[in-house]
Amino acid sequence: MSISPVVAEVDFGQPGRQLGQLRVPQSRDDSGWGTILVPILVIAGGSGPTVLLTAGNHGDEYEGQVALLDLARTLREEEVQGRVILLPAMHYPACVAGRRLSPLDGRDFNRCFPGDPFGGFALSLAHFVDSVLLPLCDFQMDLHSGGTGMDILPSAVGHVLDDPDMQARTLAMADAFGAPTTLLLREVNAGPTLLAAAERRGIVALSSELGGGGRLNPDNLAITKRGARNVLHHAGVLEGPPQPGAYGAAQRMTVPDLAHYVFAPCDGIWEAADPLGRAVSSGNPAGLLHRIEALGEPPIELWYAATGVLWCVRHAGRVKAGDPVAVIARPL
Amino acid sequence: MSISPVVAEVDFGQPGRQLGQLRVPQSRDDSGWGTILVPILVIAGGSGPTVLLTAGNHGDEYEGQVALLDLARTLREEEVQGRVILLPAMHYPACVAGRRLSPLDGRDFNRCFPGDPFGGFALSLAHFVDSVLLPLCDFQMDLHSGGTGMDILPSAVGHVLDDPDMQARTLAMADAFGAPTTLLLREVNAGPTLLAAAERRGIVALSSELGGGGRLNPDNLAITKRGARNVLHHAGVLEGPPQPGAYGAAQRMTVPDLAHYVFAPCDGIWEAADPLGRAVSSGNPAGLLHRIEALGEPPIELWYAATGVLWCVRHAGRVKAGDPVAVIARPL
Amino acid sequence: MSISPVVAEVDFGQPGRQLGQLRVPQSRDDSGWGTILVPILVIAGGSGPTVLLTAGNHGDEYEGQVALLDLARTLREEEVQGRVILLPAMHYPACVAGRRLSPLDGRDFNRCFPGDPFGGFALSLAHFVDSVLLPLCDFQMDLHSGGTGMDILPSAVGHVLDDPDMQARTLAMADAFGAPTTLLLREVNAGPTLLAAAERRGIVALSSELGGGGRLNPDNLAITKRGARNVLHHAGVLEGPPQPGAYGAAQRMTVPDLAHYVFAPCDGIWEAADPLGRAVSSGNPAGLLHRIEALGEPPIELWYAATGVLWCVRHAGRVKAGDPVAVIARPL
Amino acid sequence: MSISPVVAEVDFGQPGRQLGQLRVPQSRDDSGWGTILVPILVIAGGSGPTVLLTAGNHGDEYEGQVALLDLARTLREEEVQGRVILLPAMHYPACVAGRRLSPLDGRDFNRCFPGDPFGGFALSLAHFVDSVLLPLCDFQMDLHSGGTGMDILPSAVGHVLDDPDMQARTLAMADAFGAPTTLLLREVNAGPTLLAAAERRGIVALSSELGGGGRLNPDNLAITKRGARNVLHHAGVLEGPPQPGAYGAAQRMTVPDLAHYVFAPCDGIWEAADPLGRAVSSGNPAGLLHRIEALGEPPIELWYAATGVLWCVRHAGRVKAGDPVAVIARPL
Amino acid sequence: MSISPVVAEVDFGQPGRQLGQLRVPQSRDDSGWGTILVPILVIAGGSGPTVLLTAGNHGDEYEGQVALLDLARTLREEEVQGRVILLPAMHYPACVAGRRLSPLDGRDFNRCFPGDPFGGFALSLAHFVDSVLLPLCDFQMDLHSGGTGMDILPSAVGHVLDDPDMQARTLAMADAFGAPTTLLLREVNAGPTLLAAAERRGIVALSSELGGGGRLNPDNLAITKRGARNVLHHAGVLEGPPQPGAYGAAQRMTVPDLAHYVFAPCDGIWEAADPLGRAVSSGNPAGLLHRIEALGEPPIELWYAATGVLWCVRHAGRVKAGDPVAVIARPL
Amino acid sequence: MSISPVVAEVDFGQPGRQLGQLRVPQSRDDSGWGTILVPILVIAGGSGPTVLLTAGNHGDEYEGQVALLDLARTLREEEVQGRVILLPAMHYPACVAGRRLSPLDGRDFNRCFPGDPFGGFALSLAHFVDSVLLPLCDFQMDLHSGGTGMDILPSAVGHVLDDPDMQARTLAMADAFGAPTTLLLREVNAGPTLLAAAERRGIVALSSELGGGGRLNPDNLAITKRGARNVLHHAGVLEGPPQPGAYGAAQRMTVPDLAHYVFAPCDGIWEAADPLGRAVSSGNPAGLLHRIEALGEPPIELWYAATGVLWCVRHAGRVKAGDPVAVIARPL
Repeated sequence: MSISPVVAEVDFGQPGRQLGQLRVPQSRDDSGWGTILVPILVIAGGSGPTVLLTAGNHGDEYEGQVALLDLARTLREEEVQGRVILLPAMHYPACVAGRRLSPLDGRDFNRCFPGDPFGGFALSLAHFVDSVLLPLCDFQMDLHSGGTGMDILPSAVGHVLDDPDMQARTLAMADAFGAPTTLLLREVNAGPTLLAAAERRGIVALSSELGGGGRLNPDNLAITKRGARNVLHHAGVLEGPPQPGAYGAAQRMTVPDLAHYVFAPCDGIWEAADPLGRAVSSGNPAGLLHRIEALGEPPIELWYAATGVLWCVRHAGRVKAGDPVAVIARPL
Repeated sequence: MSISPVVAEVDFGQPGRQLGQLRVPQSRDDSGWGTILVPILVIAGGSGPTVLLTAGNHGDEYEGQVALLDLARTLREEEVQGRVILLPAMHYPACVAGRRLSPLDGRDFNRCFPGDPFGGFALSLAHFVDSVLLPLCDFQMDLHSGGTGMDILPSAVGHVLDDPDMQARTLAMADAFGAPTTLLLREVNAGPTLLAAAERRGIVALSSELGGGGRLNPDNLAITKRGARNVLHHAGVLEGPPQPGAYGAAQRMTVPDLAHYVFAPCDGIWEAADPLGRAVSSGNPAGLLHRIEALGEPPIELWYAATGVLWCVRHAGRVKAGDPVAVIARPL
Repeated sequence: MSISPVVAEVDFGQPGRQLGQLRVPQSRDDSGWGTILVPILVIAGGSGPTVLLTAGNHGDEYEGQVALLDLARTLREEEVQGRVILLPAMHYPACVAGRRLSPLDGRDFNRCFPGDPFGGFALSLAHFVDSVLLPLCDFQMDLHSGGTGMDILPSAVGHVLDDPDMQARTLAMADAFGAPTTLLLREVNAGPTLLAAAERRGIVALSSELGGGGRLNPDNLAITKRGARNVLHHAGVLEGPPQPGAYGAAQRMTVPDLAHYVFAPCDGIWEAADPLGRAVSSGNPAGLLHRIEALGEPPIELWYAATGVLWCVRHAGRVKAGDPVAVIARPL
Repeated sequence: MSISPVVAEVDFGQPGRQLGQLRVPQSRDDSGWGTILVPILVIAGGSGPTVLLTAGNHGDEYEGQVALLDLARTLREEEVQGRVILLPAMHYPACVAGRRLSPLDGRDFNRCFPGDPFGGFALSLAHFVDSVLLPLCDFQMDLHSGGTGMDILPSAVGHVLDDPDMQARTLAMADAFGAPTTLLLREVNAGPTLLAAAERRGIVALSSELGGGGRLNPDNLAITKRGARNVLHHAGVLEGPPQPGAYGAAQRMTVPDLAHYVFAPCDGIWEAADPLGRAVSSGNPAGLLHRIEALGEPPIELWYAATGVLWCVRHAGRVKAGDPVAVIARPL
Repeated sequence: MSISPVVAEVDFGQPGRQLGQLRVPQSRDDSGWGTILVPILVIAGGSGPTVLLTAGNHGDEYEGQVALLDLARTLREEEVQGRVILLPAMHYPACVAGRRLSPLDGRDFNRCFPGDPFGGFALSLAHFVDSVLLPLCDFQMDLHSGGTGMDILPSAVGHVLDDPDMQARTLAMADAFGAPTTLLLREVNAGPTLLAAAERRGIVALSSELGGGGRLNPDNLAITKRGARNVLHHAGVLEGPPQPGAYGAAQRMTVPDLAHYVFAPCDGIWEAADPLGRAVSSGNPAGLLHRIEALGEPPIELWYAATGVLWCVRHAGRVKAGDPVAVIARPL
Repeated sequence: MSISPVVAEVDFGQPGRQLGQLRVPQSRDDSGWGTILVPILVIAGGSGPTVLLTAGNHGDEYEGQVALLDLARTLREEEVQGRVILLPAMHYPACVAGRRLSPLDGRDFNRCFPGDPFGGFALSLAHFVDSVLLPLCDFQMDLHSGGTGMDILPSAVGHVLDDPDMQARTLAMADAFGAPTTLLLREVNAGPTLLAAAERRGIVALSSELGGGGRLNPDNLAITKRGARNVLHHAGVLEGPPQPGAYGAAQRMTVPDLAHYVFAPCDGIWEAADPLGRAVSSGNPAGLLHRIEALGEPPIELWYAATGVLWCVRHAGRVKAGDPVAVIARPL
């Protein structure tokens, strides 16, 4: 039995379509028993697995939020065999602010798992997702984009797993999702993410990166809308096969190690040498860092230390020392 | 004689190349007589007019900052006939932060003219620019982009002026700058901008919009680098004619009135119907506003109320009630 | 002609009922040309004077806000002879926050007149009200309550004026408003208030205090709703005479000087000796100040230094040195 | 042995009256070894149980703070058989600020138990209370009111307990306290409260709600002063029986489930339909939510979903989505 | 007649000793009519001039605050011929915080003159001092130290004045004050200081620097206590001559220009080469700037560009680009 | 194997001199995968023990930071037998700010051990130091000074340990360090400090206090530079014996209990009676607390309650209730 102080104003055991909310306690000076309402949709019917689709883990990643809002409007109860749970704006205060981090306490929601029931809004909600929602699920996908700072090739993102069966099922779901790229990562420190929390509970789970730059990209929105439905088709909650994208099967890639990252060694204005998706080579220039405090001096040149495809590139012009400005992926 | 507390650590009356700084007082708790250093370059030689080029009026507009840093490195003293003054990161604290507004006091520097010598950093610096630098100048151009929120067609921007001679000279400088578009605005409330301050002092003056979205756009950077040199050619400070862009002569346009703006009536996630530069028509959909608080309801549809070219479109996904999301320009 | 950057999305010269908004520029980092929308209603018809009713000057004073929202819904175009302008939530950001002061810059809107067109949101809006709205008006009433800190007897509040005719007209409007009390003040420092701004423009003008304690008091709401309509009847914009309250004619009172105030000499928890409206006498105890830092010591006793009626008493328990905790009024 | 870094500048093992303080570490930039002083009183004499009375758990709840300050002044050493420990302003920084939450870190002290010795001021103090003070106690009562946001019928508040003997002893203490109402709650998530911490240590323990609205209510102060002494009489620390209130025996009530709450579905100004203490019925209107952003539209009507007595009602006018605005209790 | 909203709770026209306060309006969310109390002492008797002594212009400068608190306790009414007005903690909120700048709005009080009656706490108080207090005065001295950041040789500080008579009277008062050094400055931008405000009103006026480093220096406190009384002796308010210091007559010095300052070119940790008061020479090392971001690189060497006495040296270890780290004075 | 998300861009297993950085994740709104770079130096060669020297645990303590920057520049690879790891600016954000506490979250880094890999910057870095660096070490010394608030006699500081062998080895290292004083403390609550973390791992470990007052003291810098090298000599990493100071062997002292502290009972300006290092006696005056809010009243006198040497005295003038203002040490 859960000890979560979060109250779900939907009944997960009920059939039918329920639009409701999670009521998460957030004490204010002027409302000691105040709560924050996180919108949730549950559609259950017939028999089949449970799929949890989430977006708004980070508030400035828009493709997933809009795709799930769209799915919530268009998914009909009679289509569903099993159960679909949608959280289109999961870390709600960050979504309202259009920021990655919470305006309440600066937390990154994807560093909050498995949560703490009395640790404040983000930890309390993460605990509810982990201890109440995940145990209901067979499949889970958490829809991310690159946010304000980064622009990323639209990709389903999974982990390298020890269990070959889970690995296969994860890759199958990624294939079904149908983004142009599937990225498989070996993350030793992924513990506090929702993806790792789902994996710990034996759920077939994916994350994704679907654009970025702090904007809603229409092409990526189309990929995300189709992908969200494809996951339901793949799980068998919707009838029929997933619908492939125009670009064919996803290319499976990975980012093997830190040598595939380029980091800014100091503050400056970032001028990338290459656009997203271009093939790049170790030893070639990655871009320039222009320093306003060094009038008259040349910009700092940054270089790739690996060869592959430019999978992620810094969007925002101003960078700080230690910021990644480019990430290279290569075929798995 | 100026009563500005700002100290210029360059001598504007001296010939030659001087890299220096403006020393602007900014009292801190732990440094009562502290100053902030704003980088400045002066190159003077031979005889000719004075041109002041500025960027970093807003800290998150990068094409101008990088173009002037580049010009500061490459402009040779022996090329110059007259005087060039460069302020590549004018509102320095905002530039360091990569923000439009000052991290010191939230001020928008382009709403600070004609300034106040003892009104705090921004007003004090604006007063110096207005009362010390502008009186030295014959030509002035202030390089803007659309910033974090907006994306804008690369344009030289000028005002509709009462004096036909000044209007002609302004348009000539815009033609020389060589952006694809020249936008002429009738702004009744432009008083606190640097452009209006320069006009009040009888200087041939332009502003610009050269991209946006909080990033450095390489194509727009190329336009800006060439444009900055073109202004010097046009003024006669550099020998030879301005160098035209590949796209030929600038198209002269205007934004006649508020009907050419589309505003968000409430908060939401903005999905634009059209890309920048497309021809759009009154009565057609401008885009959708997706509301995370209204799960299950359709997005709000916004419509154009004018016909023309989509000159500016909201980049950032999250908007607040009252934000402009599209601006239409039409031929002058 | 006004140079205000505020745009009214209603046409004050048009007959009929217009629900619209004032569009007040407020630059944000992610929206340089952002605006804040202040709701406004204009109803004009037939011939008659113009009455401006405002509430939400302070965001935590609720009777006026709700009464004007109610009036905006119920006032029919065909009832109106002349023009009614309603601003039910004038200092909109403070109203959204439920705070007296602006969450944008901490300003008290009623210390911002006559404003400054480019001085930031509050000064810019005050300038618009002063320079655009007030010149249209014959009568103006600004509806206040005591806010979070104070509780006040429901009262129309006017100034002692030099011009006996204006004084008589002011008192007549106060009588018509129909609060139990009319308070007439001699304020030498009222310059930056809306009331003083209206008086400077020769308008018959009142302020009010209609409860407080940070809550919406139902009895005071009834007084305010009736009073707002009564002002329209009095001005002749609505037909028929004002409707008196059950308590008969207003008692005219004043607060002659600072001896009628009781101030807290130090921080503490305030325990009032008397409820609002009680007759109190000089030399009697006004209340106790309990100091948590002085465990074991008696509370500090405060005393009245004047005789009259307890017109205003501190609501909030915690006070700081220098806070008024009681104000005594006496018959004019 | 305790590892708390909190130092008590009283000796709990000593007889007599000791006014002192808890010295709680709080590092500042300019005082690395700084401490915050929390006032404490210990009176011990003869033989008898130990009673801990606390107030100022939330800084904006005043009846308890003032009643314990009064008790600290008036309780004579020679009256006491056993030991009385008083913490009238327990969460001291919140009490100084007159706020529910800590101005240091925004924590709600009543969500901090059992604390953490090195987790910052609030957790460190909670750990001291839990690990050092509670083990000394036989009876504990934590005096709350409704705070800035809520107004609540004066009530002793206890938990539904599994152990019938502890339940009986708890109800007996509540009867002795003598508030008009005794509320018994089944709280599955009360873990981080002081009440639950005391129960975990086998102490007969109560909380209370004694008014609210951010003010000191004189009637409720009288109840609280008498109640605090009554607890000492009941425990046998003071001789003689508790002194009943004029209203006779407390009515025992409960709030069975969330259907007895009314929540605001969106932001607005709250107009309650009923005063505190009125009998209300399921299906009747609970109040109106007025929305300043929806000029011309009707307010939102809220309805009761249960029948009983209006035990708690929103005081503060401005509410946010998710705030409770009414709580109904019914006889146990 | 003054229109200041500041109320003096002393009567400057009354004889005798009055301990009181200035009541300066400062609106808070929970106290709209709140005021801040600035302690003031007035002693008047017999006939003679009026002397205004102020300290706490900056809150982290302690010698003046303590010397005037001491004078307020020890100055007897019967000693005074004329009038003494003491403001020992003038910018009261900054003094409570122990900070140079106001915790209310970050203002430097000594950049606020001549003030603005409705411009917020600091401007409002400056306006009162300028328009109400200064017109009462014949002599004024404002007691400063170097604050948190700087350490300065104890000095009376005056301006180079155009009027030789005023200059002579100023130097005579400085001689009487009796600090080891008298510094005479030609400040073209001193307009917003209290010293300049006093000079504009024809008052014999001085500032001072009496130590610093954010601490109370006992030797400098002794100089300041004696100096404050000496000013009263010099003015004739106290009988008898000023009492000289053990070090004999003050040395008259000046800081001729910016070449006598050493500024930090970048952020770092400051290691001064010389102690305060040492004779230093142009071209010699002034100190080192250690940069934590440049591990392995040598520190930056700074050099004197003038010859004289080290009058002021940076105390605080951490400096920012643009901070002065040394100021050299030389004989007048 | 460590699960730390911190990446060391040096290889601790490699011989030679490596200047690098620790890359510590710190998510920002505009850089989700941002990191903060903490400078580190590793020199390894020959065979011998590993010594970890750290400074900048608190950002406003400068002697250690500068001494280790100096050591990093001057220590030659060929001198080293074993391994030296230097972290001259360990809590880097606090060092950049020149503040004791982190500008990121207000944490005191020396209350963060043993850390938490996903608990935010400070806890994450503390976890890395504890779980990755400490297991490599034989000797550790963490260089502190008194910071902005306190001034302290230059001292090596160790703990009273249960194991006599470890105690002897600790004292031997302190003797080798060569500060004038060695202070041995019995700290029951030292758990979250780096010193305790090192002890828990069986490392010979010391802390220190080497001046303070927010400045870099040249004499103490000399002691610290020599002491840092002496630790390496003592460990055998550098050849030859430690170099003693001019003052001979360190005096071994202790601070036995809280009676050796003087605390401020209320806010005020601190005037110390004695300079650092003076012999003081119980019952003698420790200093005065001047209260600006109590004009006309005498200052509060504070007294020593123990006899010994004034080891630490409050530097900063402004104190708050609960601040220590003096600490007395006596011979061990």
